[in-house]
Amino acid sequence: MLIPQEITRAVTIALEEDAPWGDLTAMSLIPEDATATAELIARELGVFSGGAVFDASFKQVDARIATSLDLADGERFEPGDRIATVTGPARGVLTGERIALNFVQRMCGIATLTSKYVAEVSDTSARIVDTRKTTPGLRALERHAVSSGGGHNHRRNLSDAVMAKDNHLAVLLASGIDLTSALRRIRDTVPHTTHIEVEVDRLDQLDAVLAANVDSIMLDNFNLDDLRAGIEKIAGRAVVEASGGVTLETVREIAETGVDVISVGALTHSARALDLGLDMRIA
Amino acid sequence: MLIPQEITRAVTIALEEDAPWGDLTAMSLIPEDATATAELIARELGVFSGGAVFDASFKQVDARIATSLDLADGERFEPGDRIATVTGPARGVLTGERIALNFVQRMCGIATLTSKYVAEVSDTSARIVDTRKTTPGLRALERHAVSSGGGHNHRRNLSDAVMAKDNHLAVLLASGIDLTSALRRIRDTVPHTTHIEVEVDRLDQLDAVLAANVDSIMLDNFNLDDLRAGIEKIAGRAVVEASGGVTLETVREIAETGVDVISVGALTHSARALDLGLDMRIA
Amino acid sequence: MLIPQEITRAVTIALEEDAPWGDLTAMSLIPEDATATAELIARELGVFSGGAVFDASFKQVDARIATSLDLADGERFEPGDRIATVTGPARGVLTGERIALNFVQRMCGIATLTSKYVAEVSDTSARIVDTRKTTPGLRALERHAVSSGGGHNHRRNLSDAVMAKDNHLAVLLASGIDLTSALRRIRDTVPHTTHIEVEVDRLDQLDAVLAANVDSIMLDNFNLDDLRAGIEKIAGRAVVEASGGVTLETVREIAETGVDVISVGALTHSARALDLGLDMRIA
Amino acid sequence: MLIPQEITRAVTIALEEDAPWGDLTAMSLIPEDATATAELIARELGVFSGGAVFDASFKQVDARIATSLDLADGERFEPGDRIATVTGPARGVLTGERIALNFVQRMCGIATLTSKYVAEVSDTSARIVDTRKTTPGLRALERHAVSSGGGHNHRRNLSDAVMAKDNHLAVLLASGIDLTSALRRIRDTVPHTTHIEVEVDRLDQLDAVLAANVDSIMLDNFNLDDLRAGIEKIAGRAVVEASGGVTLETVREIAETGVDVISVGALTHSARALDLGLDMRIA
Amino acid sequence: MLIPQEITRAVTIALEEDAPWGDLTAMSLIPEDATATAELIARELGVFSGGAVFDASFKQVDARIATSLDLADGERFEPGDRIATVTGPARGVLTGERIALNFVQRMCGIATLTSKYVAEVSDTSARIVDTRKTTPGLRALERHAVSSGGGHNHRRNLSDAVMAKDNHLAVLLASGIDLTSALRRIRDTVPHTTHIEVEVDRLDQLDAVLAANVDSIMLDNFNLDDLRAGIEKIAGRAVVEASGGVTLETVREIAETGVDVISVGALTHSARALDLGLDMRIA
Amino acid sequence: MLIPQEITRAVTIALEEDAPWGDLTAMSLIPEDATATAELIARELGVFSGGAVFDASFKQVDARIATSLDLADGERFEPGDRIATVTGPARGVLTGERIALNFVQRMCGIATLTSKYVAEVSDTSARIVDTRKTTPGLRALERHAVSSGGGHNHRRNLSDAVMAKDNHLAVLLASGIDLTSALRRIRDTVPHTTHIEVEVDRLDQLDAVLAANVDSIMLDNFNLDDLRAGIEKIAGRAVVEASGGVTLETVREIAETGVDVISVGALTHSARALDLGLDMRIA
Repeated sequence: MLIPQEITRAVTIALEEDAPWGDLTAMSLIPEDATATAELIARELGVFSGGAVFDASFKQVDARIATSLDLADGERFEPGDRIATVTGPARGVLTGERIALNFVQRMCGIATLTSKYVAEVSDTSARIVDTRKTTPGLRALERHAVSSGGGHNHRRNLSDAVMAKDNHLAVLLASGIDLTSALRRIRDTVPHTTHIEVEVDRLDQLDAVLAANVDSIMLDNFNLDDLRAGIEKIAGRAVVEASGGVTLETVREIAETGVDVISVGALTHSARALDLGLDMRIA
Repeated sequence: MLIPQEITRAVTIALEEDAPWGDLTAMSLIPEDATATAELIARELGVFSGGAVFDASFKQVDARIATSLDLADGERFEPGDRIATVTGPARGVLTGERIALNFVQRMCGIATLTSKYVAEVSDTSARIVDTRKTTPGLRALERHAVSSGGGHNHRRNLSDAVMAKDNHLAVLLASGIDLTSALRRIRDTVPHTTHIEVEVDRLDQLDAVLAANVDSIMLDNFNLDDLRAGIEKIAGRAVVEASGGVTLETVREIAETGVDVISVGALTHSARALDLGLDMRIA
Repeated sequence: MLIPQEITRAVTIALEEDAPWGDLTAMSLIPEDATATAELIARELGVFSGGAVFDASFKQVDARIATSLDLADGERFEPGDRIATVTGPARGVLTGERIALNFVQRMCGIATLTSKYVAEVSDTSARIVDTRKTTPGLRALERHAVSSGGGHNHRRNLSDAVMAKDNHLAVLLASGIDLTSALRRIRDTVPHTTHIEVEVDRLDQLDAVLAANVDSIMLDNFNLDDLRAGIEKIAGRAVVEASGGVTLETVREIAETGVDVISVGALTHSARALDLGLDMRIA
Repeated sequence: MLIPQEITRAVTIALEEDAPWGDLTAMSLIPEDATATAELIARELGVFSGGAVFDASFKQVDARIATSLDLADGERFEPGDRIATVTGPARGVLTGERIALNFVQRMCGIATLTSKYVAEVSDTSARIVDTRKTTPGLRALERHAVSSGGGHNHRRNLSDAVMAKDNHLAVLLASGIDLTSALRRIRDTVPHTTHIEVEVDRLDQLDAVLAANVDSIMLDNFNLDDLRAGIEKIAGRAVVEASGGVTLETVREIAETGVDVISVGALTHSARALDLGLDMRIA
Repeated sequence: MLIPQEITRAVTIALEEDAPWGDLTAMSLIPEDATATAELIARELGVFSGGAVFDASFKQVDARIATSLDLADGERFEPGDRIATVTGPARGVLTGERIALNFVQRMCGIATLTSKYVAEVSDTSARIVDTRKTTPGLRALERHAVSSGGGHNHRRNLSDAVMAKDNHLAVLLASGIDLTSALRRIRDTVPHTTHIEVEVDRLDQLDAVLAANVDSIMLDNFNLDDLRAGIEKIAGRAVVEASGGVTLETVREIAETGVDVISVGALTHSARALDLGLDMRIA
Repeated sequence: MLIPQEITRAVTIALEEDAPWGDLTAMSLIPEDATATAELIARELGVFSGGAVFDASFKQVDARIATSLDLADGERFEPGDRIATVTGPARGVLTGERIALNFVQRMCGIATLTSKYVAEVSDTSARIVDTRKTTPGLRALERHAVSSGGGHNHRRNLSDAVMAKDNHLAVLLASGIDLTSALRRIRDTVPHTTHIEVEVDRLDQLDAVLAANVDSIMLDNFNLDDLRAGIEKIAGRAVVEASGGVTLETVREIAETGVDVISVGALTHSARALDLGLDMRIA
């Protein structure tokens, strides 16, 4: 659910950064009327994401450039597969190349990593979700890439839902404020449409949180036994999210505890750019 | 050489993305007059970068927040080291936390990876430089992080210098244009202050490029023998850059061929976020 | 929960609209060094809202102007009461006057009207909430004014929560799509932190909606009997919102049915500007 | 005389406010290829205004949406009349609905109220004009709505003409500055194309103002006898504007005194939103 | 009557143009803690204008830079005179130098040229005014410079007053529209505060224009006899403006015909930059 | 090498300045459906520049206006020549007229003056280049105009290349810093693609600069003998630029010394607007 304005904004920033007063090389070296066709080729396995961003990266350089996509976002590719074809004035194709690649390599990296986590938890009731550990300025694109990989999104930002985390609780404690009352006060204040989630670090914090009737509870860095105990205690009164150092090795056993949501910061902060190339097709 | 406007712009975009209408949790849960002190703590080894960005992330949320830095950009830290201290209104400290971390974790990741490449080539005449394979919107910050790690920067963008790459040459070839003449025409056109670099893929392209009197030549994906042959042929008439799939394993032997510049895309596109935490200090 | 950026943005737009190249009268008629003190005086009964906006309207004209507020947002005033005092360079006081009044007269109008609805439902469990029928560009300020009057806010915008209304259901029907399945698909798609509300026009739509496990149900234009029947059927499985043509005459009996939320479009679309004046105090 | 840029700007602000990252409901509930036709229906009597803004509200959401208007701005409608038809992708029609209505309900409210004042003064030489008591950010649209209702506009803003009001005169008095000389100094300073208007509260202020050769004189809160005396004294040497607490009950007798201009703040600050609905047409 | 926002906007654009990512030379060559004092020195005779712009050019680079002005706008200087002193961090002084000079050299050029025209018409009743033949983007600054030179301003722009020129009349003629009726229709439409000026090329056009009761009449390219005849015919019923190829040689005899306003495009489109230098003072 | 974004930006600023809320005259006087054809006619000899800016000035007012150009940028015209034809809605043609003329008159003035300098140095090896003494906000357009006149561009701005000038050297001297070492430190710091130029005022400064291996050396205000001596001493080790008070009278003998580059501030700061007119063609 990426809207065109978000793509336009990201590509505009990228273009102003990479070609503030044009592409000196293309303008001085390539004839104005030369046309070119280039192919986006996978050099490794992966899941595609970013078709619309790829297209916009060229279109915003020169509206006459056309891209045709062989894959939809979310589809898999193998090394050597052609993912897209770009045709139009050669100057514009060359100018947009690096920006387009920078976007899709990153987005495919995230989609591909996400798909691995999602595959691990298949046939469980857990959803894999992202976090706010995204690249500043690119959150909308990275959330979309998580979706392309089969993952779900968490709240979008600090304005979108209430989420009381360890550091909030530390400040409350230092201020001598009772957690249950504080959480109830939020409920009385925020819109009835605002979701309230609370992070707990230890089982013994659960009673105070459950007493405040919150919507979700995040069990942070719980071992498997504590996770199971927590889920049992919550007993369906709140959505249960597991979090903290989740890896491809540990995600399945966490999912099998019965948690509803597993959040994985690594999806966005540690995905590496996938190797894709843009090859000129010589007529 | 990161200017304040670049930091302000990046932090502004990050804040609009992460708190478009404020931090619901902080505003509804934390007393307006509560203050907090938090410490930026390293959880692994690394090189610091991003002190000014870290500071601005809090200052733009609430100008009353003060940060004091224990390390300057470029200095090393070990796990457990305190890197910075943040003090001020608790709401603002909590609101800025994630943005500040997202920036410095990424920047420290890049600085740390760069420092490893730089260490490998010590006592050679080669400089390690970045590429345009940066995160869209964050190039200025990532270039700075490369500097913090001891690396150098390449041209900033497409407007900054001429760089004729393989795809340009492919279009010229397809258009039946002679490379030497084309390069000379550039020299006659662009300002005398504009640097001209050309990428070659094979030794036999060198004559045509040298005939055009360019400033730098990039030898792309050359093996060590060809690199040495290329350098010998160029014979000081242009800066020599090696590029293409450079790794920590191969960078030293490349440097020992005598190249002037080694460009490494991985510095920015494959550095992972470093593990840093912001811990509330409870009075 | 109005953040400073929202105030700055609204005042900036107002100033660019009202004084794009300055205040010709003040600049040509009033000596540069003249100072003035003006008082914001109530000319009718009301509830105050907009203190920070009033202050910013002058501060953005001339940072040397100081305002002191006699009332906090949410406090009542009577005709003749002084609400605030403004002191500073006379030119700036005169330039900011109209903008400041335009903002607070509107905000006080909304707060005052809201407070009447809220008084009507006192001692019931219903909260009075606003709608998206706000003035384009001023939603944040008008939501704040509703709070000042003792009301609550509904979702902020279309990106903030899912709310399926009559026109959505009409399109689904026309497309031959089953409502329950469609709502379940939303639940499977959106973040677990996204609230889902559905509007129904008739009691017989309730089963399909309840089967989909939504968070809130809006009973639109229900008579009192149907409201009571609806609440009984929902039986605590969702927040219940009553809506549609609610007036000061009908709001109490609606509240007494036991609904949780009563939304009133009139709070923002039909509140009239309150009569407040800015009187120069002559030394 | 509303220019496209002013409409675009207002709609852009409204859309960023109401759908910063898209319409969650439409995107998750409505099939991408569903189309819809909706009709703008009057639910009460009124005068239409805002056709171009209505159209832009949908076009900026999705350029494929077409609107056809049954009425031009300034034309009257009765309850049940269809004013416009909207056709296009169902998602976009649903997303734009509220913004479009918020704009035209307000504009029709102003046009309708204005038309009542204008009707009252028919066959007199007085024009009904608006004031600067407009909604911050919407002045251009509200001025247009006044025109749709048959009214005229006053100066657009503080940069557009000189208008010395009571508070300016109070500051001059406090500074010991002679009014006639001060007004003459303005005439000597401002462009010859700048209109100068002065507000007086009492008949005895007229001599000083007339001596300065101003373009218009506003007689503020004058009773009918004083109005007539003022007009007689001015004797065609300046445009005469009556102002202050003008109502539908009093406007005709004011007009019959022979004033040229009657300014009515209520046109914009107290017009209520008209009741218009957007009904989906089910094929 | 130049407002701070106009200065800020112009300097911001200039800085983004001249130092988009900082001043490479200052940052790499000059120690961060070096301070410098520089003096703005006149190298020829002139009239000063632009003190606030000069100050802002440095302040926006580095807020720690202080400027002190020896002359106010409108004061004269001789070759060798010191006009201002700039002190602060050396990097910022060097970065702002060229921008500051580009602004004030141009503004002083305009002020100086204007002062010559104004001197020529001393003791006549004519005012010298500028036109819309200004540098795109710098109109506010150039109008201010005209004031500094003792001139007056014409309307600010196309939105500020009605001015029917030869090309408008040509279109009316081609459309078979009667001029007097068309001008009367304008008067009936535009606000009573809007000034209406009409340009005529021949004496025989005057009757039609006078019949429409306009505010000003521009006599374009009239010889002295026709000017005198026109003024006699207008007989005080409108402000009279002379225009068209006015030079320093002809301006006095034009003024002596008794015209009210003489507009001179050359003030802004043909003033050359004055020679001013910024000299570093070595301690 | 002017990119469309630079043109759009300049025209947008010009339009907001000249018609912030439309063209009152055109909208109130000219029928909405009237069309007009106008011709851009030269009234003096010159070189054309600005065709794309001329076109955009009308297109941004009304996209239905078409311009056809009789001359390409860089071509010469004589008095009476038609340069372009504009056809479309009469309102838009009249609204865009002044902006279009303001741009092209300035650009043609620069191109024409440049062409005179270029003609003077024909058959020498010197290129005529511009400086940073451009109009704030219009540098991209003015650089393009220099190209149209056959000139070359210097560095674009402070971020584009290193250029150590007299004031930098003065600060270094005052700080007791050795020039050669300082310049070498720059070389070690900046990207290998960054050009380094140094200005010297006296022959005896050359050794220190040559020792640092810079790319260009500017000999500022050298007499012809010293120029020749400097060139001989530099002996091809750097590009040689002559600068300082170059006039049409002196430029040829400067070129004949063998310098590579002659920079002329007058090209942009002292070119006067060329006399071009836009004449309505009456059918």
